[in-house]
Amino acid sequence: MPERLLVIGGDPGGMAAASQARRRRPDLEIVALEKGRWTSYSACGIPYVVGGTVSGLDQLIARSPPVFRDQFRIDARTEHEAMAIDLDARTVEVRDHAHQRTYRLGFDILHIGTGALPRRPDIPGMNLPFVRGVQTLEDADHLLQMVKAGGMEEVVVVGGGYIGLEMAEAFVMRGGHVTVVTNSPEVMATLDPDMGAMVSEGMRGERIEVRCGEAVIGFEDGIVHTEKGDLPADLVVLGLGVEPNSKLAAEAGVATGVRNAIAVDRRQRTPVDGVWAAGDCCESFHRIADRQVYVALGTVANKQGRVAGVNIGGGYATFPGVVGTAITKLCSLEVGRTGLTEREALAAGFQYEVVKVESTTRAGYYPGAAPITTKLLAEKRSGRLLGAQIVGREGAAKRIDVLATALTAGMTVEDITALDLSYAPPFSPVWDPVLIAARKAAERIEASR
Amino acid sequence: MPERLLVIGGDPGGMAAASQARRRRPDLEIVALEKGRWTSYSACGIPYVVGGTVSGLDQLIARSPPVFRDQFRIDARTEHEAMAIDLDARTVEVRDHAHQRTYRLGFDILHIGTGALPRRPDIPGMNLPFVRGVQTLEDADHLLQMVKAGGMEEVVVVGGGYIGLEMAEAFVMRGGHVTVVTNSPEVMATLDPDMGAMVSEGMRGERIEVRCGEAVIGFEDGIVHTEKGDLPADLVVLGLGVEPNSKLAAEAGVATGVRNAIAVDRRQRTPVDGVWAAGDCCESFHRIADRQVYVALGTVANKQGRVAGVNIGGGYATFPGVVGTAITKLCSLEVGRTGLTEREALAAGFQYEVVKVESTTRAGYYPGAAPITTKLLAEKRSGRLLGAQIVGREGAAKRIDVLATALTAGMTVEDITALDLSYAPPFSPVWDPVLIAARKAAERIEASR
Repeated sequence: MPERLLVIGGDPGGMAAASQARRRRPDLEIVALEKGRWTSYSACGIPYVVGGTVSGLDQLIARSPPVFRDQFRIDARTEHEAMAIDLDARTVEVRDHAHQRTYRLGFDILHIGTGALPRRPDIPGMNLPFVRGVQTLEDADHLLQMVKAGGMEEVVVVGGGYIGLEMAEAFVMRGGHVTVVTNSPEVMATLDPDMGAMVSEGMRGERIEVRCGEAVIGFEDGIVHTEKGDLPADLVVLGLGVEPNSKLAAEAGVATGVRNAIAVDRRQRTPVDGVWAAGDCCESFHRIADRQVYVALGTVANKQGRVAGVNIGGGYATFPGVVGTAITKLCSLEVGRTGLTEREALAAGFQYEVVKVESTTRAGYYPGAAPITTKLLAEKRSGRLLGAQIVGREGAAKRIDVLATALTAGMTVEDITALDLSYAPPFSPVWDPVLIAARKAAERIEASR
Repeated sequence: MPERLLVIGGDPGGMAAASQARRRRPDLEIVALEKGRWTSYSACGIPYVVGGTVSGLDQLIARSPPVFRDQFRIDARTEHEAMAIDLDARTVEVRDHAHQRTYRLGFDILHIGTGALPRRPDIPGMNLPFVRGVQTLEDADHLLQMVKAGGMEEVVVVGGGYIGLEMAEAFVMRGGHVTVVTNSPEVMATLDPDMGAMVSEGMRGERIEVRCGEAVIGFEDGIVHTEKGDLPADLVVLGLGVEPNSKLAAEAGVATGVRNAIAVDRRQRTPVDGVWAAGDCCESFHRIADRQVYVALGTVANKQGRVAGVNIGGGYATFPGVVGTAITKLCSLEVGRTGLTEREALAAGFQYEVVKVESTTRAGYYPGAAPITTKLLAEKRSGRLLGAQIVGREGAAKRIDVLATALTAGMTVEDITALDLSYAPPFSPVWDPVLIAARKAAERIEASR
């Protein structure tokens, strides 16, 4: 009998692993369980479908179950939910929702890619049906039906995380009146507040009501109660971030670490022999903070899934870790970040210098030259880059990749000033904004020595 | 009497040095000589003014003589041309064109920023007035007058260099019929021919006639003679690249090096005591080829000018060198390159693996996802990145900066696969094109070991 790889979770953390394992081990039997109706989709694309920028949910699906079956010989079972894992018996209890039956499936190798769940703090009314998370295509499908049915005039986004803000834009594009409420000082708490303030301000400029420093204290049908009053709401979208969907693994005895994410090593092995994990359900190594962290990003899930699959297939691969890079587009606003924020740098024990520089994305005289604000953190004395944040308009945010690369290479801000970055008037001022910021940071370090 | 810094050349190589020197040495007397009518302008912006994208030449001027005089106490003399340098007497012979007089000016420190001249090979008729280079604002002014006067229906660009192709676009935007003739196999010889072919093809798609592998053998008024026939031409634009304008320095006995560019060390010192040079008239150090090269780019001129100025002002700065980065936009086509091409790598003695990968600039389902072709050269065995070329549409070319940074850090293609680059559907597929190319290159290196 062939060895069986059982994969729990039909999105990238699971399916990238299944595909890689298949390539390297044609002999494996591979079964993948997905509790929802869809496999291998881009959850990051959901706001663009709900907003109407992308024409349909089907466009987000990279590979459907028939593709997995026919091209990869992977038995991808949708609407099959893993209910419990028995690590001693090496079996998983599976609920087949379509046929209302439960069965057990044995495994030789288990790979867990159960993803994340929207955070739902313990607030009265949190589980009312008009309070929705946005995580799966089922969530997206539901919101899209609501949009099409009309009557979604008042939308309240609770929290200032990426997905919440992207959904705010989506509903504005659908003609709704959108209010974002967060008890943080500014939206997007993954930025420093001074940079977050630019995002709050930018969103206000796009007809989104942004209420910061205001805690939500409860929900009633049609109403969001905050500490400062009531807001009418046809729909509430949760944007409070996510937490690892690790309960199944934890209940089976698989160890969890940071923020209850499944503990994995750099090859994506859990501490249990023959059990692997990847994606939003597990930890990631942070190369700058030098420790395990929890990040839930599609790009990380894909990379970790691939690493797990290579290793399961008998190859050798390690997840290189993250440096904290993220990017988003909100209406005409672009936001990028990498490395450590001030708060994160302090928590990690670093002392640093900060600079913040205003520039333009193109030569000042070239049409479409847009504002870009670049903030850099450099370690005191050494001048090593610790983190960067960018807020700007068209053409601003992807520059964060240069800084992510510099961070990975351990460059100092002085090293960055020496980079031979490309210049032509349609793309950059003669001194790229990254270079201007690095120069200012290098001067600051020099002066403080 | 105060020491006098005499600067020859009013564009960035000269004036960036003058400004920096002023900041650090308030005591210096600074005189700058510019033979043309304008100082401190962006020559890179000329095609966009001629094409009408940018509204006027004045927009390209960063600082005018009154600004230099009033804000920097720099005596910037336009239409004053340095005719000869006497290094023993420490004087320069100056021709004041406006007043038709000649005078001598002494110096304690001399800084040469005489820029570049369009290459004019020895072809019959090359000096006819309808054959124009594009280097100075005078050139631009002349072309703009011609455009406004009308009657420029047939434009022939000779050569496939950046400025020539950018001018081709400019004249198409003005409604002209433009033909590019080059005796190279493809346009843009700073790319490998396979990537250059994509540019040739892209330009043909923009109503530009591109004739490759066809030598121009002569000019007569209204006609360009090529080895394959005659082309009608109301105007001929030279796009054969530039050469250093180093004659003045060389005649005075300042040593020249690569391609007759003025020899400088990393602090921008010429071999003559107290004589400095920066910008398109002098050499640059290439960090990958590990030797002096000649590049003529606005960004390099600005950086070298700054370095020279810091040193003249008594500070310490070195020019970090180039890695061969360049970028351009041609109609809807974007082109970037960094490091070594195949030809350059072979000339430097490297053996390498090559990969070329097609991808998209955004998630495939996101509107505006455009094609991007990424080519990488990696050193055999070590896998160290040697060079990269990108041809694509909107959002493609600026990605070259990540590769320029990786090149500077000495990263292998395997190292690049580990980069935590930003991902969101409006900016990138989940695997950034740079990562896809690096992965394929790493596999190629692995297989060849």
